Amino acid sequence: MAPPDRPTIELWFEFASTYSYLAVWRAAELVHGAGLDLRWRPFLLGPVFQAQGWNDSPFNIYPVKGRSMWRDMERQCQEAGMPFRRPTRFPRNGLLAARVALLGSAEAWCPEFVRRVYHMNFAEDRDIADEAEIVGLLDSMGLDGRELCIRSRSTENKEQLRQQTEEAMRLGIFGAPTLVVGSELFWGNDRLEQAVAWARQGAKPGARPPQAPDRRS
Amino acid sequence: MAPPDRPTIELWFEFASTYSYLAVWRAAELVHGAGLDLRWRPFLLGPVFQAQGWNDSPFNIYPVKGRSMWRDMERQCQEAGMPFRRPTRFPRNGLLAARVALLGSAEAWCPEFVRRVYHMNFAEDRDIADEAEIVGLLDSMGLDGRELCIRSRSTENKEQLRQQTEEAMRLGIFGAPTLVVGSELFWGNDRLEQAVAWARQGAKPGARPPQAPDRRS
Repeated sequence: MAPPDRPTIELWFEFASTYSYLAVWRAAELVHGAGLDLRWRPFLLGPVFQAQGWNDSPFNIYPVKGRSMWRDMERQCQEAGMPFRRPTRFPRNGLLAARVALLGSAEAWCPEFVRRVYHMNFAEDRDIADEAEIVGLLDSMGLDGRELCIRSRSTENKEQLRQQTEEAMRLGIFGAPTLVVGSELFWGNDRLEQAVAWARQGAKPGARPPQAPDRRS
Repeated sequence: MAPPDRPTIELWFEFASTYSYLAVWRAAELVHGAGLDLRWRPFLLGPVFQAQGWNDSPFNIYPVKGRSMWRDMERQCQEAGMPFRRPTRFPRNGLLAARVALLGSAEAWCPEFVRRVYHMNFAEDRDIADEAEIVGLLDSMGLDGRELCIRSRSTENKEQLRQQTEEAMRLGIFGAPTLVVGSELFWGNDRLEQAVAWARQGAKPGARPPQAPDRRS
């Protein structure tokens, strides 16, 4: 275990979120490579969007923005060397996967599970809302998929995911992915480097952001 | 003048847009440094937002998102070494400045004018909607501010700005800044490097995006 005072980055993610796929793909390597801890914080965007008056993804509500996002995802994945296939259904319901991820959020299998769920959704176009898919994925990781899915639906775990989503809203989170370092919020995969630089500086209250390396070159 | 077949990046911007300030600050150096031409395309976000059902900036309509944007601007400007002061009024009306910029969009003074208007708005908290401010700025650049403002209100120039805003919507532009390279749209200051890399590759129809340098380090 890392010493308790090691700086931590919280990665708040939702399995239906396209840009979370980009962040989850690279977060662990980047954060651990910087000597920091990474805390996985699954939550649900549905209630967050509802609080803003939306009953669907803003990428569906505003199709012009949606078209741009899908093209951007293609280019971003290409640049990062990540497989990508636009899902035939969007957004997919990530509730079960989020409950399982929450159950395992302190377990060694969590990062791989999270990455592979995103891969199913955004590279394989498979339905992550289908319990058989999640069970199969967990089983293929050497876990007991059926039992984990049952435990993920315990009253306690369901309530904990609700509370985690409420905590997201209290923190001012309005989209995913969001990186949280102390009291600082960084929205989007594009801010992962800045969040890491901030956390390395110690994230002192009132501290100014560090000078990050020039990314213009 | 550059040869006509030199790859061009169009920078679509709106003077009220916070993230356009970041893009305008660095675009010319980055684009020209890559051997490309830069075309300045002022337009108005008001009609674009109205088409999406908004009668104000989404950063005002969704205050949680707005709070995050202002903090992000502070950090981004700090990282880029740019002065920043949150304007006491947002969004400011950039209509006059956009008309003047359009009038000068092929003139040598355009880039400096554009940068200095953003500086007034986002570093000095001065009212860019005030004609006296725009006249004073143009005068300080050795131009005839009063005459340029009068010409910017000609029927022809006003109509041209309307048409440019309509062209933005036809292109699928929904926010600013947007970089346009051939038929590709790149939304946001964060995509400036990718737009440059794309343009350098020749922006052939159907071409795949180039592998950009790794920005993780």
